[in-house]
Amino acid sequence: MTDNAVASRTPLTLLGTGAMGTALARAWLAAGHEVTVWNRTPARAQALAAEGAVVAASAAAAVAANRLVIACLLDDASVGEALDGADLAGRDLVNLTTGTPGEGRARAAWAEARGARFLDGGIMAVPPMVGDPDSGGYVFYSGSPEAFEEHRDTLAVPAGTRYVGADPGFAALHDVALLSAMNGMFAGVAHAFALIRPEDIAPKDFAPLLFGWLTAMAPAVHQTADQLESRDYTRNVVSNLAMQAAGIPTFLRTAEEQHVSPELLAPYLELMKRRVAQGHGDEDGTGIIELLDTRRGA
Amino acid sequence: MTDNAVASRTPLTLLGTGAMGTALARAWLAAGHEVTVWNRTPARAQALAAEGAVVAASAAAAVAANRLVIACLLDDASVGEALDGADLAGRDLVNLTTGTPGEGRARAAWAEARGARFLDGGIMAVPPMVGDPDSGGYVFYSGSPEAFEEHRDTLAVPAGTRYVGADPGFAALHDVALLSAMNGMFAGVAHAFALIRPEDIAPKDFAPLLFGWLTAMAPAVHQTADQLESRDYTRNVVSNLAMQAAGIPTFLRTAEEQHVSPELLAPYLELMKRRVAQGHGDEDGTGIIELLDTRRGA
Repeated sequence: MTDNAVASRTPLTLLGTGAMGTALARAWLAAGHEVTVWNRTPARAQALAAEGAVVAASAAAAVAANRLVIACLLDDASVGEALDGADLAGRDLVNLTTGTPGEGRARAAWAEARGARFLDGGIMAVPPMVGDPDSGGYVFYSGSPEAFEEHRDTLAVPAGTRYVGADPGFAALHDVALLSAMNGMFAGVAHAFALIRPEDIAPKDFAPLLFGWLTAMAPAVHQTADQLESRDYTRNVVSNLAMQAAGIPTFLRTAEEQHVSPELLAPYLELMKRRVAQGHGDEDGTGIIELLDTRRGA
Repeated sequence: MTDNAVASRTPLTLLGTGAMGTALARAWLAAGHEVTVWNRTPARAQALAAEGAVVAASAAAAVAANRLVIACLLDDASVGEALDGADLAGRDLVNLTTGTPGEGRARAAWAEARGARFLDGGIMAVPPMVGDPDSGGYVFYSGSPEAFEEHRDTLAVPAGTRYVGADPGFAALHDVALLSAMNGMFAGVAHAFALIRPEDIAPKDFAPLLFGWLTAMAPAVHQTADQLESRDYTRNVVSNLAMQAAGIPTFLRTAEEQHVSPELLAPYLELMKRRVAQGHGDEDGTGIIELLDTRRGA
């Protein structure tokens, strides 16, 4: 790499060198960015010094070093503590710390009041995926559109970027929504493996069937979206809720026969029954989403 | 189609002409099979007469008409009632009625005691997918391997076939396990859509992200299978349970901020916490499967 190429890359500051912060720093260093790092426990930042990072003595000094400041800390409170004495005026603060949408919004207002532009990020990757363009990992960004436009190439170095809006809460919201859906899928997968576990069925023979079925059924999310947009939950229904609810006893009795607790499955089945009891048996499962709204009467 | 080609196809009897039975009958009729149908409510079978089916006056007469007898009734009890006065000796009974593994096993013993070979089936399709080779729908079969071998071409007419073992309970077990996993995924999807619902985020923009993330994470089932086979739940872990559990408060607080009940998500998060508390924070989520075993102490 020529000196010119190096010089053209945006220098940046990274606060937090845990597993994710270290992976991010390495990706930027490998791409020729000057990286100033700070970590509350200095020893964990020193390893990066050998790889070319500048280790700042304090978070305030790290922030003073570069206009682009990335925070990847334990939680939102850690961000407030680390930046307490730093001068954020004129800085672009990109917060990759895990948090809620509300924390993202509050942190944006806090940063803007201190003269910074703010982006919140939600990382859809684990550290080994960072810096690997083929990993499929990416980061949701929301907040200042101008800051995102200016830094999009730099932000794209460790992982793909998906900008989801000016509302600084949207990155965390998308992040949590997708991880929540994934946990639901994993809960279903755990129940399925638990069902076959007492039998002479090899998990490695069962897994491809499970994978095939889940990926074949996943496109149903597009139909759910279409029904939510049209507000017509009976639209294009192929197996209505009444028919699905008729299968509930079979699900529960099978779990009992196989000595599997129904605790992961039961709440969804209960909502199916409740929605049918409310007279919506002709709908798809989409109406269950309404039952989750805590602002409605139960 | 020539008369010879028609003559070479196995004639069969179909008991039950609900939505699924009717779709099955049409697929076999379209492929040139002679089909004798019976339905408890005769009017629902008459529509198929115009399409070439023979309508039998009783279930016993329908069973007498052909050696291959397919049952697609409301539930296992309906199968027992319908076949109560029928002579099953020398018959091949293929039971596509929804039921539990235990019901499949008991019905197999019942049929064999009456001189029939028995196959149980679990239909992984909805009626519109039947007869469409591109739909991806298929049927699990288990029970008599000889009966399956003899009829596999006939059984493959309405939907793909997957034979999963001589144990007559395995078809229902695979069916219920896959549908249970799907319900888990749909529960996660419902929670995710509920989270974005209060915001100015179009469901049709969110759905592709959700689809992409779920299908990117679905291959984790292979790792789960590998860990179950090796009995080493720490094998190839990229994000261990302790790290995942650290995110639980963010999941729950986000649900609260967005006015979404955590009821679909909470049971899985509770099991994550319980497994970590038991000292398994270095594992993958696979250990949660053990916590579902009702034969273990809580």
